[in-house]
Amino acid sequence: MSVADNAIRVAQKDVQPGPSRKLLLEMLKVLFTVSPEQFSEERQSEERIASLVQEFLLMTNINTEIDGSSLAEKFSDSVIPDNPCAVDMYLNQLAENVVTHSTHISSPRFIGHMTSALPYFVRTLGKLLIGMNQNLVKLETAKALSPYERQVIAMIHRLVYQQTDAFYTQHIQHHKSTLGIHLSGGTLANISAIWCARNRRFSQLDGFRGIDQDGLAAALVAYGFSRAVIIGSALIHYSFEKAADLLGLGVNGLIKVPVNDRGQIEVSALQETIAECRARRWCILAIVGNAGTTETGAIDPLAELADISRKARAHFHVDAAWGGPLLFSDRYKCKLIGIELADSVTIDGHKQLYLPMGSGVVVFRDPHAAAVIEKHARYIVRSGSADLGCRSLEGSRPATALFLQAALNIIGRRGYEVLIEENMRKVRYLAEAIGSHDEFELLTEPEMNILTYRYVPARWRKQAAAGKLSREENQAISRVNERLQELQVVSGFSFVSRTTLEHTRYGMGQPIVALRSVIANPNTTEADIDAVLRDQIRIAACYGI
Amino acid sequence: MSVADNAIRVAQKDVQPGPSRKLLLEMLKVLFTVSPEQFSEERQSEERIASLVQEFLLMTNINTEIDGSSLAEKFSDSVIPDNPCAVDMYLNQLAENVVTHSTHISSPRFIGHMTSALPYFVRTLGKLLIGMNQNLVKLETAKALSPYERQVIAMIHRLVYQQTDAFYTQHIQHHKSTLGIHLSGGTLANISAIWCARNRRFSQLDGFRGIDQDGLAAALVAYGFSRAVIIGSALIHYSFEKAADLLGLGVNGLIKVPVNDRGQIEVSALQETIAECRARRWCILAIVGNAGTTETGAIDPLAELADISRKARAHFHVDAAWGGPLLFSDRYKCKLIGIELADSVTIDGHKQLYLPMGSGVVVFRDPHAAAVIEKHARYIVRSGSADLGCRSLEGSRPATALFLQAALNIIGRRGYEVLIEENMRKVRYLAEAIGSHDEFELLTEPEMNILTYRYVPARWRKQAAAGKLSREENQAISRVNERLQELQVVSGFSFVSRTTLEHTRYGMGQPIVALRSVIANPNTTEADIDAVLRDQIRIAACYGI
Repeated sequence: MSVADNAIRVAQKDVQPGPSRKLLLEMLKVLFTVSPEQFSEERQSEERIASLVQEFLLMTNINTEIDGSSLAEKFSDSVIPDNPCAVDMYLNQLAENVVTHSTHISSPRFIGHMTSALPYFVRTLGKLLIGMNQNLVKLETAKALSPYERQVIAMIHRLVYQQTDAFYTQHIQHHKSTLGIHLSGGTLANISAIWCARNRRFSQLDGFRGIDQDGLAAALVAYGFSRAVIIGSALIHYSFEKAADLLGLGVNGLIKVPVNDRGQIEVSALQETIAECRARRWCILAIVGNAGTTETGAIDPLAELADISRKARAHFHVDAAWGGPLLFSDRYKCKLIGIELADSVTIDGHKQLYLPMGSGVVVFRDPHAAAVIEKHARYIVRSGSADLGCRSLEGSRPATALFLQAALNIIGRRGYEVLIEENMRKVRYLAEAIGSHDEFELLTEPEMNILTYRYVPARWRKQAAAGKLSREENQAISRVNERLQELQVVSGFSFVSRTTLEHTRYGMGQPIVALRSVIANPNTTEADIDAVLRDQIRIAACYGI
Repeated sequence: MSVADNAIRVAQKDVQPGPSRKLLLEMLKVLFTVSPEQFSEERQSEERIASLVQEFLLMTNINTEIDGSSLAEKFSDSVIPDNPCAVDMYLNQLAENVVTHSTHISSPRFIGHMTSALPYFVRTLGKLLIGMNQNLVKLETAKALSPYERQVIAMIHRLVYQQTDAFYTQHIQHHKSTLGIHLSGGTLANISAIWCARNRRFSQLDGFRGIDQDGLAAALVAYGFSRAVIIGSALIHYSFEKAADLLGLGVNGLIKVPVNDRGQIEVSALQETIAECRARRWCILAIVGNAGTTETGAIDPLAELADISRKARAHFHVDAAWGGPLLFSDRYKCKLIGIELADSVTIDGHKQLYLPMGSGVVVFRDPHAAAVIEKHARYIVRSGSADLGCRSLEGSRPATALFLQAALNIIGRRGYEVLIEENMRKVRYLAEAIGSHDEFELLTEPEMNILTYRYVPARWRKQAAAGKLSREENQAISRVNERLQELQVVSGFSFVSRTTLEHTRYGMGQPIVALRSVIANPNTTEADIDAVLRDQIRIAACYGI
């Protein structure tokens, strides 16, 4: 126990009136002062945290047994404590109430969401990130990290667009160029892309100062449109609904085109939609391609969409938040052909780049595409400055791009290639394992490392094998799978997520509840995959479902 | 050097074709595998980072001498390395090129932006945050952190709104209630508040499905308005320009009302603006009060604004990103009287709550105010779920609220009170020091712990003391201060920022370049404050300005 911790503990005994101002000042000094002596004070809590993290990471069960409401009960006091709490006491409470009951999303048997184990160096670098606490909004608070972030954004740009050396020499560090923006996640990256598309489409005209100045209603009038829309497939990520709402288009301004049974946008239906928009004088701001969809990993025909977008004078955005890293693989990058024709592309750091939560990137083919969202203030991000905050949805923000730099350097393109290819190998193993079990029915072939399937109770297995189930039977099986997934979550040994597919081999408009598996954790082995399936069979048997 | 690092180093010798697939797999195993053996492997890089962080924190100079373009030069390669790099080699590069040249924003002599030293426990907790890597978008990936975040949001809500115990018992953990939203920063918090205000104002009518569904143009038609606007003072934060642009109002839809010479909104001018909006059939979506302004810390008359907003049927938002924590102080909370009448309030974690970059909170008086931005998807945030991602601008996001919980518990209300009061004490010291030096002129009295002043060359000191400077003389002094601040940044010993004030004792419309000082670092002493002023006098003398 440290000197100050002890001081506080002694002070807390006098419940009224709590520690004196002098003691409080002493405590604050311990918390904030930077000195070699204080570093050794910190040592104790560092050791405690290190062992907490290790214990946490070593657990493979996903959840403890505690139910949600009992857990919520623990966090039902809304009063900010009046008096300070010693760090070690706080850590004890945290360990008991929070860490223990947190979800082990890095478990090799947690194969249901877009999360994974992380490379160890990000945990270590986290300390440096917070220690330096740079603020990327302006150069004055991030002298080295600003150009360092620009560099890693250029790396992602190059991965996607493969421009010439001369292009990158010109733009990589030029303060008027924006090869891309680092944001807290893919949702903000997608919103930023559509924001740029909208503002660019409705730039100034005689008597109209541009949509950024005069707003959407005036833009529609100036350009002679009755509304503005975004078009994507039925499987487009829900962040585009946020974008459509925020940007004033309304969710109905996000037109969803049906998909085929592989989850790809129906090109003929897209063409019809475009023609219809033209006829109605609706302005198509952007066409969005998925690479791949969150639900099943489906990849839209990007090159075709690029061509269609160009003809429709629409911005072409590719949401590759999940699938972008296929570009690292010489074997699989062909799946993304056409992505280099996109006007903007989203790739998430915290998905298949294996970074901690809080990292999304949007890159722009045209380095000046983001000029249309530029904002200034007198105290920072002044006009003409090199501050990264001039062209960003966020204001003050952390140097999270440091993780991205570290990972691209330490793992390297070939390291990522192996990760991607291993994921693809393991998802095929899962597909085969599902195929070899009567208990399961594969619902989508893996286009990427996401796969959907379902459990089929014994009485329906024959019909399922033949693909002959009535709507009522499918509904009954859906209820079984809903229940199964819930029981699996509660039992805590393994985890897959679930979704509802609208288009399967049973046809359109017959919703099928699916178990959804995402194979991205490098620590997930074939044995883990077998264990997850066995767990589901066990649960089904145990609960008689 | 670890086994795998060594393996990679050996492998890198064969430049062509680089490490074999087998070696790459071995490296990936080292990076990702979780085992007691691997933890000891990590130890080495942890020690390295720990000493890097300590060295960094102990430096008090703000910047190294390197100029921006030489630094940018270091980061001009846009190619992702093909082969992996050993962790220790990467850390060496990082230390040399990035850490050394990063800005020491935690230096006690960095008193120019809204950054400070941080309490040590956030550096340690950073490791736990990344180690658990919970994703707050859904309960399935943040079982304990979701209710834990709800709790801390309720604490901030209570700090602002002081509702009854019964109120908090009802809403704190109820999945349909949203007492507030944790976001990556104040900009997103402000945007979220205005988004909610807009959507609430234009809810559904007969034949209109609500702005979230049908968009802004349809909303204006349905409600019979020609445009929609936000009103704030001339000193409103620039994030509201982003909000106005994003939300389709256009920056011209953000009406800025003049301020008095204390930086507060002119209430009579506001009333005129409101009357004018009415006359033109412009819908006033929101009136924004500052508490305090980024530029000078000015606080608008919040209670009066609340009353005016109510009468104008406008949402009343208070941007207390900076000033909110005054509420911790029994002595100073009276400055924010009226904040409890706001419909929404923004408070930043990474400002005066002393948390790392990446933390902003918006709280809503009405726990159902955020229902109007609700979004769903089939695979997560399903309708009726308790997933926090249902009502948030961001999607996947980190459990940064853990820092906020830790700080409120460990520092406590009284600890924050002392921090705030010490800041106020020291800013008065600075104001007095400026007053006692002929070389300086105080431009704004400190309302909070932000203060603006300027250096006055000897030849103008008499006139300045009498407040009698011509426009040309003021312009000349402005150029001197611009130059002085730039030289101070380059010299690297101390730091203040600068801004341009529009309304000073020299009257409106005469822009005055000001040095801007923010006193928030608990480690900043009176001696540091003296040193900053001495440094400025030295620079002015040295460069003959």
